[in-house]
This record gives sequence, C-alpha cells and structure tokens, in this order.
Amino acid sequence: MPNYRLTLTFDGTAYHGWQVQPNAVTVQEVLERAIEETVGRHVGLMGCGRTDAGVHAESYVANFNVDSDLPPERMLAALNSRLPEDVVVTACEIAPDDFHATLSAKGKIYRYTIAVGEVRPVLDRHVVHWVRHPLDVDAMRRAAACLVGEHDFASFVTQHDPDKDTVRTIHRLDVETDGRYVGITVAGNGFLYNMVRTIVGCLVAVGRGQRRPGWMKAVLDARDRTKAVDTAPAKGLTLVRAIY
Amino acid sequence: MPNYRLTLTFDGTAYHGWQVQPNAVTVQEVLERAIEETVGRHVGLMGCGRTDAGVHAESYVANFNVDSDLPPERMLAALNSRLPEDVVVTACEIAPDDFHATLSAKGKIYRYTIAVGEVRPVLDRHVVHWVRHPLDVDAMRRAAACLVGEHDFASFVTQHDPDKDTVRTIHRLDVETDGRYVGITVAGNGFLYNMVRTIVGCLVAVGRGQRRPGWMKAVLDARDRTKAVDTAPAKGLTLVRAIY
Repeated sequence: MPNYRLTLTFDGTAYHGWQVQPNAVTVQEVLERAIEETVGRHVGLMGCGRTDAGVHAESYVANFNVDSDLPPERMLAALNSRLPEDVVVTACEIAPDDFHATLSAKGKIYRYTIAVGEVRPVLDRHVVHWVRHPLDVDAMRRAAACLVGEHDFASFVTQHDPDKDTVRTIHRLDVETDGRYVGITVAGNGFLYNMVRTIVGCLVAVGRGQRRPGWMKAVLDARDRTKAVDTAPAKGLTLVRAIY
Repeated sequence: MPNYRLTLTFDGTAYHGWQVQPNAVTVQEVLERAIEETVGRHVGLMGCGRTDAGVHAESYVANFNVDSDLPPERMLAALNSRLPEDVVVTACEIAPDDFHATLSAKGKIYRYTIAVGEVRPVLDRHVVHWVRHPLDVDAMRRAAACLVGEHDFASFVTQHDPDKDTVRTIHRLDVETDGRYVGITVAGNGFLYNMVRTIVGCLVAVGRGQRRPGWMKAVLDARDRTKAVDTAPAKGLTLVRAIY
C-alpha cells in the first residue's frame, strides 16, 4: 500500500488549526475530504504537528497510506482540484513504508512576522501582527539568547498538563528587522502548545521596553506560565517547514 | 483653507475601484465617509486616477480642501481610526494650494505580479495572478520593448471613445523573474482604461508561446483593440505610486 507524502501550503485564517475537531473546520478535515473524493473512501491522515487556529504554513508535511495506483503527480493534481483556494498541495511523493509525518519529524522551523509603526499593514494584514510602538531589536536579541538550548519551557506553555514533559531544545532563535518588519525565526526539536506565540509575546514586551532583557531568563527559570505575558496573535505565525 | 494631501495603501479586492459610483462600494466612498465623520461635513476628494475594480495600491495619492485646524498627523490618526482594515492612510501633509492629485500627476508606476507554475499561490493569492504554464521571460522582454516611448495605444484600451486621445508615453516596461514569480513594472505619463492589464495579457500570450514577440508591434500598429488578447485579471495589478 503506497505511503503518499504531501507537502502543503495553507492560509490558516479560516481554520481552527490542523487537527480535526468537532464543530470547527480544520485543514486536516478539508484535506481528508479531498482524499476521500479522490480515492473513494475515508483515509486517516498523519500531520507533522498540531497548529493553532489562525496559524499559517508554508511547508506542512502530512502522509497517508491507501491502496491506490495513482502516481504521485496525479494524486497532487486530483487533490488540488478539490481543495479550497486557501490550501494547496505543493509536492506529493511516495515515501518509504516507515515514514510517519508525526513520529518521523525531527523538529520544526517557525517564523513570526510583526509590522512595526504608526501605519497598519494592509496588503499583508492576514499574515502579520501589527505593533504600533517602536521595538528595540537589540534588546529582543539579548532576551532571546537565554532560550537557545535545552530547557524546561513550562513558563511558555498554556493548558499545561503537569504530567507532560515540557523540556524542549531550541536550536536557533533569530530576530531580524528591515525597519518596517521584525521577523522572529525559531527552530527547535519540538514546540509546546502556544510556546512560539508566548515567546514572541515576551520578546515584544522586551522590545517595547515594558520588560528588561534579563527578565526573560527569570521567566524561563520560574517554570510558571503566570510569569510570562500574553501570547502574540496567531495570524503573525507561519510554520516554515518541518525537519525530517 | 488647508489642502490635505493623503497617501493611501489599499487592498482593492472588496472595492469597485477608486471612483464613487452607484450601487458599488469604492475606495473614494469609504475615504469620503471617514473624512465626513472627522470634519463633520461632506468633502469632495481628488484622486491620482481611476483604478479598476479589484486593483490594489501601495501609494495612491488624494487631496481635499477643508476648513479645519486639525494638524496633518491628527488627521491621519482620525481617518485611520475610521477606515476599514483594507484601507489605510500612510501619510498626510498640508500641500500647496495649487496641488491637485488628479491634475498635478505627471505619471504613474504600476506593477503586475504573476505566480508561475503547477502550484496555485495561497498566502498571497489576493495580490497575484496565477499562470500554470511556463513563461518565456526573454520573449516577453523582446515583445515589451516596442511599447516603450510615445505611441498611440488604441489597441490596448477597452471601452474606446474614438474622440479621445489614445497617445501615451511609456517610460519603462520591465519584465523580471525569480523563477516562481514574474513581475512586470510599467511607468508612464498616463494610462488608458485597462491599458496595463491588456499589455500584460499580450505579454503572457507571448510568454506562453501562443504569439511571437514580433506580434506585439503588429498589435500596437493596428490601433484596434480586437487585435490584442484578453486583459489579465485585476488582482495581479498594484499601483506602486503616482509621480508628481
């Protein structure tokens, strides 16, 4: 039974994230429907991870096994003809039998984009978060440095289940700017629920001067979500790609 | 009476162009309503030109005269607090009395963006036109060359009024690509109704190999709209800026 591996781009604005859930439209659901219309029966789909409602993806990876003789390029065309305009399959290939989009993932890279300044973003308003106040990017970089490496990120997780392991490794956390936009790129071996958006919320508090850079280390060490600040809005967050 | 000069960015997706018209929402109309709510009476607004339904603008220029003592930075903030999320005032200043956004305009720069390839654009689908077939950019450049300079562009105007002058000057017509996107930038002293989109439609026909580069000169010389091909869709077109 071939193991189809899909790479997807989606605009998360209209979706309650990746994973199927009752009473809300998700990306997994529209993709499973397109697969069902293509192969004639329901097929369970594995994804590289949950994404929050409203979060976008440039290269999300999913896979499914189905008894089909459709070559991958025809599977891609068939799915795209059935998907709505905010989801597209960018690549389809036959993966080894043991490839599993969730279990095989070694990590992920996310990018968070902030438009800074008096003027609201318009043409890209669906994919960036607007911060009216100037941001001190050097201060944000100094605050970010303490998060790189293996740490217990309990302070940055919402809906914390105390029995779950909250230790993760961040390989890279870069803050860049061209004056108008501030881009925060984070690569790691895995991310807890709302972790990237909570880190971004804390970095923005530092950038605005509401907190000092050294405060970030105190938040990390506290292992207590109440020490952090609000999560940044979902629409600024994009999954750049999953790492295998 | 101060002459307020505004620079605007708008996403044209939801609008029937700039100019007020019955039974359709236009950018001019939502801006005049925001001005009326700010200054307490209706004020007529001059714009740097008509734009077609669905066309976007990065730096559209408009002006209005009103007996108000609001400093420009407060006018900007007042208008932006009343404008919808797809229109924003990026700059406001007091212009000389004789500045008139329509009459003072010396020209305009437009950019048309095409996403090329098997995969539909998703995150930027509102502002680019998708062409599935490969485009021969060198052939498009050769075809474009004959349009630069002063010419009668009657072949590129829809709704042609034979009494109206159709001579215009194109200063620059560049076709660039990074592999995934083809960007067509055109600067000129003025543009006829649908002229940019008809030029783009013809360039795409050449890029796809449906017409030879030399065909463009024959279209231009014919001064007959039926010799050209279909206009390209509005959503790929953005007014970059007006020239004063």
